[in-house]
Amino acid sequence: MSEAPPDPATIRMRGFTQRAPVEAVWDWLAEQVTPLGPETVPVARAHGRILAQELRAPEPVPPFRRAAMDGYALHGEETVGASAYNPLPFRLLGEAFPGSPFPGSVPKGSCVRIMTGAPVPEGADAVLPAEHAQESGNRVEVSDTVPSRKHVGPVGEDIEEGEVLLREGHRLRPQDVGLIASLGRDQAAVVGRPRVRIVVTGNELAGPGTERAPAQIFDANTDMLKGLLARDGGVLEAAHRVGDDAEAIRERLTADGADVVIVTGGSSVGAEDHAPALLAECGELAFHGVAMRPSAPTGIGRLGAAPVFLLPGNPVSCLAGHELFAGRAVRLCAGRDPDFPNASIRVPLTRKIVSALGRLDYCRVRLGSEGAEPLAVSGASILSSTTRADGFVLVPPDSEGFPPGTEVTVRLYEPAWSPEDPA
Amino acid sequence: MSEAPPDPATIRMRGFTQRAPVEAVWDWLAEQVTPLGPETVPVARAHGRILAQELRAPEPVPPFRRAAMDGYALHGEETVGASAYNPLPFRLLGEAFPGSPFPGSVPKGSCVRIMTGAPVPEGADAVLPAEHAQESGNRVEVSDTVPSRKHVGPVGEDIEEGEVLLREGHRLRPQDVGLIASLGRDQAAVVGRPRVRIVVTGNELAGPGTERAPAQIFDANTDMLKGLLARDGGVLEAAHRVGDDAEAIRERLTADGADVVIVTGGSSVGAEDHAPALLAECGELAFHGVAMRPSAPTGIGRLGAAPVFLLPGNPVSCLAGHELFAGRAVRLCAGRDPDFPNASIRVPLTRKIVSALGRLDYCRVRLGSEGAEPLAVSGASILSSTTRADGFVLVPPDSEGFPPGTEVTVRLYEPAWSPEDPA
Repeated sequence: MSEAPPDPATIRMRGFTQRAPVEAVWDWLAEQVTPLGPETVPVARAHGRILAQELRAPEPVPPFRRAAMDGYALHGEETVGASAYNPLPFRLLGEAFPGSPFPGSVPKGSCVRIMTGAPVPEGADAVLPAEHAQESGNRVEVSDTVPSRKHVGPVGEDIEEGEVLLREGHRLRPQDVGLIASLGRDQAAVVGRPRVRIVVTGNELAGPGTERAPAQIFDANTDMLKGLLARDGGVLEAAHRVGDDAEAIRERLTADGADVVIVTGGSSVGAEDHAPALLAECGELAFHGVAMRPSAPTGIGRLGAAPVFLLPGNPVSCLAGHELFAGRAVRLCAGRDPDFPNASIRVPLTRKIVSALGRLDYCRVRLGSEGAEPLAVSGASILSSTTRADGFVLVPPDSEGFPPGTEVTVRLYEPAWSPEDPA
Repeated sequence: MSEAPPDPATIRMRGFTQRAPVEAVWDWLAEQVTPLGPETVPVARAHGRILAQELRAPEPVPPFRRAAMDGYALHGEETVGASAYNPLPFRLLGEAFPGSPFPGSVPKGSCVRIMTGAPVPEGADAVLPAEHAQESGNRVEVSDTVPSRKHVGPVGEDIEEGEVLLREGHRLRPQDVGLIASLGRDQAAVVGRPRVRIVVTGNELAGPGTERAPAQIFDANTDMLKGLLARDGGVLEAAHRVGDDAEAIRERLTADGADVVIVTGGSSVGAEDHAPALLAECGELAFHGVAMRPSAPTGIGRLGAAPVFLLPGNPVSCLAGHELFAGRAVRLCAGRDPDFPNASIRVPLTRKIVSALGRLDYCRVRLGSEGAEPLAVSGASILSSTTRADGFVLVPPDSEGFPPGTEVTVRLYEPAWSPEDPA
C-alpha cells in the first residue's frame, strides 16, 4: 500500500512536497484493479475481446472424413499399377458434394465423384485427383495411383474432441473467432468492457464546433481520450465538460455507472484545482504528484471500486498520464495485458536526451533513417510535439539521460480505432 | 495488365493450367483500386481514419500569451535582486484564471495572481512561481528572481497560424484527433470506408448457433472475415450465406452497394465451383489460380468498380487469401498503406521450412524463446494451425525454403477490433 499522500488543502499554491514513483503507482493499480466479470457477446463482436473461460472442443472438427481434393473417392489399393499407359477402369456410382453426401457405400471396383469438403463415403479410403481420371458415362479410367488415406481428411483432423483450444485470458484474433464459430457457437463469454467516464474541467475550455470566448481555448482532451480508451478496451460511459466549479465536478465525479473515471484539468495545487480535494473527500486520493515529466501534477485514487485519474489539462500531460496510468487501469479492467499496448522498436538516438535523476521522463521522438530524434519542446502544452512524433522513449528515474548513439526502446504511436459509442 | 486467364469453363475438373504470381495480382490491385472519396465525420469518430485533405492552422494556438505555472504575473526585470533575504514587495491587483482573464493591465510595481493556462495580462511579461512569493492582503513579497518571458507561453507556442499540421493521407492517431479538436473543429474530412460484402457459399455450411446436418460443418469464415475487414478499415455491407446455387450466388455477387466483394467457397475448378464462371460472365475474372500455398484456387477480378475476391472455403486458405489480396484491396479503398498491417519481428527459425520454387508459401509459425517454429500442417482446412500460431512467414517464389537458424520476418497475428456494424 502507498504512504498517505499530503492533504491537498495544505499544498494549495505551495507545490508538491513529495512525488510518488511511477512504479509505486503501477504496483497500487495492480493490487486495486481487477478484470470485470464475464459477459456473453455474439461471436462476430468478440474480436479483440478477452476470453473469460477456457474453450474446449465439444466434438471433433471435421466430424466426418472429408475430401481434401476434387476427384474420385475409391479404394486406394485398387489403383496400384494405374498409369497413363495402363488406365484402370472403375464403375462410377454417383456423386458426393459438400453438405450432400453420397448415400451408400463404395464397394471394390467402384468410385464416387467427390468435391473438396464432401464426406468421403463408407468403403472408400482415398481421393484420386480429378486430373488423373477420364470419365465417360458410368465408367472412370484411372491413370495414376493414389495410396490409401491420400487426400482424405480424417475425423478430428483439425480439432480433436475435448481438446483445449483457447485459454482463459486469451485475446481473440480473427482466426480465434473463426475457430469458435467452427464449433457451432454463435456467442462467446468474454471479459466485460470497462465503462469509462471522461470529465474535462476548466473555465478556459470551449467545445470544438462552438464559438470560443477570447480567453478560451478549445478542448483537445475529450476527443483524444475517446480514441485512447477505445484502444485500451474501454467503452465510453459519458463525456462531460464542466467549468472550474467544485460542485459540478463533484456531481460528475461521484455519479454511479463508471468502472474508470478520468478527470482532466485542475489536478494540481492551484486555487482552482478542486479535483484532488474532492477525491480525497469522497473516496481515496492514493497519490497526488508523480515523479515524472510531463504529467507530474497527476492524482490517482478510487471512488468505490472505480479507479480515478486526475490528469493535468495540458494535452501532452493528459496523453502521458493516460498512457502511463489511466490506460493501464482500463486494460486491467478489460482483462488485458496492462503494459504499454504500443509496438516498440530499438533504434539509436540521434541526439542526447537529458533527464533529472529521480523522475521518469516521457520523451517524444521522431524516427528518421539515422534513428530516433528527441523533439525539443518547451512545455507540456505543445500538443503538436506529439503529432510530429512517431513515438516516445521513457527515461527511467535512475538515469540522467542518454548520450547520442544510445540504443533506446521507442514505443510507437499508433492509430486507435473509431470508438463504437461516441457521445 | 494481366494476361487473360483461362476460361473457367474449360478448366472445370481439370486443374489449373497456369497460376499467376502473387506480385502480378498486387500490381493489378495497385492499378485498379483507388481510395474512396472523402466524407465528413465527427472528430471523435475520426480515430484511425485517413485524412482526406491537408490540415492547416486557421489561427495560432494558443491565441493569447498563456501562464505556464501557477504564480504571479509581473514584470520580470523588477524581480532582479529578490531573494529570501531580500524579498521585494509588489502590489496585488487581482486574479487571472483560465477562461477568466484579469481585465486590466499590470503597471510597474504590481502583479496579478495567475493560474496555469490563464491569459497573461497586458504589461506583465513573466510568471513568478507561487512558491517564491508570500501573499498578505494586497501585498506580495517576492523572494526569487524570474527573467522576462519565463513561464509565459507565447502566442502560437504550440501552433503557428497557417502551419501545415497534418498531411493528406495521414492516418489519425489519438493526439492527431486532439489536435484537430484544439483548432475548434468538431468534424474531419476523411477517406470513406469501403463497404465490404461477404458471400459465403457451400451446401456443407451451417450457421453457428444452428443445428447442423450430419454432413455439414459450421461456417468459420463469416465471423473471421468480419474482424479482418474491420481491421483493414472496411465496414460490413452485408454478410450472406448461400448454397452451391449459381443463381443465388449471382444475385449476391451482382447486387449494388458494395465497394469490395469477398466470396468464399466454390472458387476452384470443381463441378460446384460456380463463382469463377459467374464473375467472368458478369464482370472480369482477371486471375484464376495464384502461385501460392495455401489459397492457390483463388480468383481475383472486378464487377464494375468493385474488386471481387473468390477465396477458397477452407478457413486457412480464406485467411491467407484475405491477408494477401482482399485485405489489400480494402486497405487501398480506405486510403491506407496496402502492405501487411501486421507488426513484424526478425527471429531465427528453429526448424527448416521447405517450399517449392515458383510459389509463395504462407507458413504459420509459433514463437518461442529460441525463435520461430514452423507449424507442421497437413492441409489448408486446419484452422487450429492458425490459432496455435503467433504469426506467419512468407517464403518467396524464388526460394526453396529456409534452413534452421535463418533469420526470418515473422508478421504477427494480432487482434482485430470489434466491427462496428456486425450483421
